[in-house]
Amino acid sequence: MLIVGESINSTISAVGEAVKARNAAFIEELARAQVDAGAHMLDVNAGVAGADEVEGLAWLVDIVQKAVDVPLVLDSADPEAIEAALKMHKGRPFINSISGEKQKLDTLVPLIADNACSVIALCLDDKGIPETPEARLEIANLMVNQATAEGISPEDIYIDPLILSLGTGWNAAKVSLDTMKLIRRELPEVCITGGMSNVGFGMPNRRLLNRIFLAMAMVIGLDAAVIDVRDKKLMTVIHASNAILGKDPYCKLYFKAHRAGNLEV
Amino acid sequence: MLIVGESINSTISAVGEAVKARNAAFIEELARAQVDAGAHMLDVNAGVAGADEVEGLAWLVDIVQKAVDVPLVLDSADPEAIEAALKMHKGRPFINSISGEKQKLDTLVPLIADNACSVIALCLDDKGIPETPEARLEIANLMVNQATAEGISPEDIYIDPLILSLGTGWNAAKVSLDTMKLIRRELPEVCITGGMSNVGFGMPNRRLLNRIFLAMAMVIGLDAAVIDVRDKKLMTVIHASNAILGKDPYCKLYFKAHRAGNLEV
Repeated sequence: MLIVGESINSTISAVGEAVKARNAAFIEELARAQVDAGAHMLDVNAGVAGADEVEGLAWLVDIVQKAVDVPLVLDSADPEAIEAALKMHKGRPFINSISGEKQKLDTLVPLIADNACSVIALCLDDKGIPETPEARLEIANLMVNQATAEGISPEDIYIDPLILSLGTGWNAAKVSLDTMKLIRRELPEVCITGGMSNVGFGMPNRRLLNRIFLAMAMVIGLDAAVIDVRDKKLMTVIHASNAILGKDPYCKLYFKAHRAGNLEV
Repeated sequence: MLIVGESINSTISAVGEAVKARNAAFIEELARAQVDAGAHMLDVNAGVAGADEVEGLAWLVDIVQKAVDVPLVLDSADPEAIEAALKMHKGRPFINSISGEKQKLDTLVPLIADNACSVIALCLDDKGIPETPEARLEIANLMVNQATAEGISPEDIYIDPLILSLGTGWNAAKVSLDTMKLIRRELPEVCITGGMSNVGFGMPNRRLLNRIFLAMAMVIGLDAAVIDVRDKKLMTVIHASNAILGKDPYCKLYFKAHRAGNLEV
């Protein structure tokens, strides 16, 4: 499973300040810390109020790729910012994100196809986030059809079922898991992703809920997790889950992490 | 999900000693502690070397049902012990267990049908424990066919895919989970159960592995878990999993456990 570090996100105030001030040292440190903690890719988001996101995202890409040698997830709602960041990016990035929103889909899909990127595709559309797994699957189908029609491979499409907090509704997590199950069954070629920091938001033992949800998503077939990689207990659950799911031959990585003192229970 | 307390098991030496010595106070305390911790049923096993299991199991049933008001899981390899315990048991017990072993199946299935019990059915046969989920499903099918032919309802059959330690093979847990997935798909009417204390046996952070495995089994559709209910972290994972899986309307029980200080992360 791909592990995407979520922390270079300008909606986090310290990061937003660093992006506005072009504080390269702060961002570089955050990039290195996440890669050291096990991130395979890093999400970069420059969407901070009162700043130019187009320039900001391109700057982030430049700074982060000088600090660490991993591909990035270009995270913006602004197609112009994505386009500028794409020009700066070395290697093959992910685009975060398209959705069923018509304008976004029509603008971004050709750009993604031209640049042979992978893409995170959110199960929402112009009417918002559907309540049922079936309706979310319908949006997934729409996105996959349009993307593959333009030449994007199914395995480059990472469907995000959308994962809301249990605080928004006690059925929220179940709907996300059921959407994942449906996608796994109905669209076996595409990948599944999701942000794993929302489920517990506003709940007691927030991070425990996030960890358990992640393990459940992994058994359903999560292909990429967007997470706080600096959360050692969460990373421990990933190690344990990989061992349990037979993705860690001879449990070598699990034992290695244990010997290195990296498992935190 | 049904929670079965596993601790009144004579293969645990202190329990075996208590059974041999007919130490009622010890057993009663163990029964109450498990019910207080959240057990819906209690497994009782009197299979201790050098003692009469037939008398021992009947004694256990009597003692435990005087101490707590829950049905029991009569756990024995000896049909005579099961038969004697059945006569002593009030209410509707589970029988633990049948398997694909021909003699056991032929002896126990009529007894279970006559007494309208539920039954735990292990995916092993006279050749041992199969390595593949498909072969375990085949044994499940055989057991379900024979049991339903004698009048046992599918929903009274709890298939145990058998859960071995990761120490016995790094693929062991995956085989169990895949067997559960197959059973859920191919035998939608039967229930799924399993002992949740084996996966981590002999591994670092044994109990963490057990907890994560349990959460994964729950999302696949585990109907009854045989566990150490006195493990607070494990019970916390069950509370969290029920909340995540939409089995705890308004997360009421989760919040209640939190307020009572019963969640241990």
